[in-house]
Amino acid sequence: MSVTAPAGFEAAGVAVGLKSTGKPDVAVVVNRGPRKVGAAVFTSNRAKANPILWSQEAIKGGVVEAIVLNSGGANCFTGSFGFQTTHQTAERAAELLGVGAVGIQVCSTGLIGTGDEVFRGKVLDGTEKAIAVLSPDGGEDAARAIMTTDTVPKMAVHEGDGWSIGGMAKGAGMLAPGLATMLVVLTTDAVLEPAEADARLRAATRVSFDRLDSDGCMSTNDQVTLLASGASGVVPDADAFTEALAAVCRDLARQLQADAEGASHAIAIEVVGAASEEDAVEVGRSVARNNLFKAAIFGNDPNWGRVLAAIGTTAAEFDPYQVDVSMNGVRVCSAGGPDRPREEVDLTPRDTHVLIDLHAGDTTATILTNDLTHDYVHENSAYSS
Amino acid sequence: MSVTAPAGFEAAGVAVGLKSTGKPDVAVVVNRGPRKVGAAVFTSNRAKANPILWSQEAIKGGVVEAIVLNSGGANCFTGSFGFQTTHQTAERAAELLGVGAVGIQVCSTGLIGTGDEVFRGKVLDGTEKAIAVLSPDGGEDAARAIMTTDTVPKMAVHEGDGWSIGGMAKGAGMLAPGLATMLVVLTTDAVLEPAEADARLRAATRVSFDRLDSDGCMSTNDQVTLLASGASGVVPDADAFTEALAAVCRDLARQLQADAEGASHAIAIEVVGAASEEDAVEVGRSVARNNLFKAAIFGNDPNWGRVLAAIGTTAAEFDPYQVDVSMNGVRVCSAGGPDRPREEVDLTPRDTHVLIDLHAGDTTATILTNDLTHDYVHENSAYSS
Repeated sequence: MSVTAPAGFEAAGVAVGLKSTGKPDVAVVVNRGPRKVGAAVFTSNRAKANPILWSQEAIKGGVVEAIVLNSGGANCFTGSFGFQTTHQTAERAAELLGVGAVGIQVCSTGLIGTGDEVFRGKVLDGTEKAIAVLSPDGGEDAARAIMTTDTVPKMAVHEGDGWSIGGMAKGAGMLAPGLATMLVVLTTDAVLEPAEADARLRAATRVSFDRLDSDGCMSTNDQVTLLASGASGVVPDADAFTEALAAVCRDLARQLQADAEGASHAIAIEVVGAASEEDAVEVGRSVARNNLFKAAIFGNDPNWGRVLAAIGTTAAEFDPYQVDVSMNGVRVCSAGGPDRPREEVDLTPRDTHVLIDLHAGDTTATILTNDLTHDYVHENSAYSS
Repeated sequence: MSVTAPAGFEAAGVAVGLKSTGKPDVAVVVNRGPRKVGAAVFTSNRAKANPILWSQEAIKGGVVEAIVLNSGGANCFTGSFGFQTTHQTAERAAELLGVGAVGIQVCSTGLIGTGDEVFRGKVLDGTEKAIAVLSPDGGEDAARAIMTTDTVPKMAVHEGDGWSIGGMAKGAGMLAPGLATMLVVLTTDAVLEPAEADARLRAATRVSFDRLDSDGCMSTNDQVTLLASGASGVVPDADAFTEALAAVCRDLARQLQADAEGASHAIAIEVVGAASEEDAVEVGRSVARNNLFKAAIFGNDPNWGRVLAAIGTTAAEFDPYQVDVSMNGVRVCSAGGPDRPREEVDLTPRDTHVLIDLHAGDTTATILTNDLTHDYVHENSAYSS
């Protein structure tokens, strides 16, 4: 059900030839109300795609009537023509839905530099076709239409106390968020004011998508959008809602990690004993971005020296000669020196757990990443050809 | 000739079984004077190997009598036993050479975590054997003994005006300097005071090794050491000497780039039109570290969108919609949009030139890097097994 699980939402996904495979490539999600509250977080990459430039401005009033998403082209670095394409997409959707254009969020994903007249024609065509088949059961179709190199659609649902949250996500490469990552649409029928929606979305993404760092590469097009219809008539408990939203985001983040391009391991880097949350995240992210560590995990090699070398490049509070490192439950390094023999570590399971104890405080954070594999190199050396 | 090209130096390289291949693995370079001036720059990784911890302290007086280097084990994260190994190595060399132990620099390279009693015995044995066969012709033997996954020894010589500079380097992975990178020994028979040696070494490495970033991974063991014998009796012109030293360093850096683990392209990322040198270096380094860009070059794909996405993650002064990008002479992106068709770019040569014009000033810097290949993944997933 994904984004159409909460009351007040309709969605659709259609195929208009943006993908050479003929698979669905334009999705629309519409909020039927009664409230049209929206909030979003965007990539912190300073090179932002045209849809981001539009959506950042359009959402300032806290109202989102609908969101149009296309795969098969990022409409990034396509100049003023590309921006006009985004604007025309919003206007076309607004006209068909009988609302104002600033109520329309637009997201695009695919190859950077794609956004010519053919692209524009197909996106406008897809917007019309999707709006014509909007349905309260269209959540899965929408989730399929935003896939690029994803092998499976990503969906999640949470049932709260009289309200619910639904979500869909796409993203299989270039996963390294600043404020947000990938394309994600979250819906809820809870009653939220715009400022509440914004605050709870930021709180939820900070501990979920912001801690997914598959390949260290930050996209130009990432956006996470929350639409709140108020259709349940229930004002949720603030903490319960934020935690539920975070749980849905973590669920989607794990689905993204599980389907990351070419990966053979889904690695959770749990940093404990940190002096601050910032330190824990910096240490986890530094290890997650270390190509030598990532290649070692691919080779089922518990190379803890590379973990310590990566930690050493951070500004976090720690003494290298106090650090412990465990892999899949075996402490291979204690106090910055060898502990259990590396032969005891079994790295053959896809799910991999690296535990780093900095012994510098009592704060914890977990970063999700993937290994560096032959398939990753292959997929990303052949992507645009 | 490498490090024994300048007057006043002897060197040797011997095999003592640190490498499983039986190839040479301990090198010694001795300064016979009359002056024993030394300077060094060290990795800025906070997780430093035992030889770094020793050498940083020992060099504070500005005197280097000799340097002992071993491959086949990094002696990093090997605890106080490992530090004692380094100290004993310095004492053994000092005793045999009839000098003080603080005059001995020690460098190690190889797998992190390697440094047990067997390792210690072999390093001490190698130190003795190398000192026993020191020779004014031993430069190439020394260069071979410090190789790890290097496929060729790296050597350089510069003839100045009455003085000369020699150098050797090793390093094929984990190439991303902070203050220094890899193991490098530079020698000169010019007459230099310790403060001059230090200043000129820092000036030279800042524009050479500091701009080599093969795989974004900073080592725990990197050290660049300059030994000055004064044997020529010539006080060099300061600018001429610094430029010559930088030229030798650039030569060695290019040799390291050419031999980087598994690479199929040697990429020069030239950033022009930057507002400052810091901006130019940050932009070049960000592109050099972007796995998607690196994989695209491996696939001979002139994917300029990934270049712009990487630039967008920096704090440098630029407007994404002013940036031009050329690859091997073809301007594929101008003013942040598509320019020439990607089909015009020939990326089949190993040497690859990426030119980025930020249009934000008049400063330039070039970062050297490599592509991300199947062989890189293979070599680094199998390294310690």
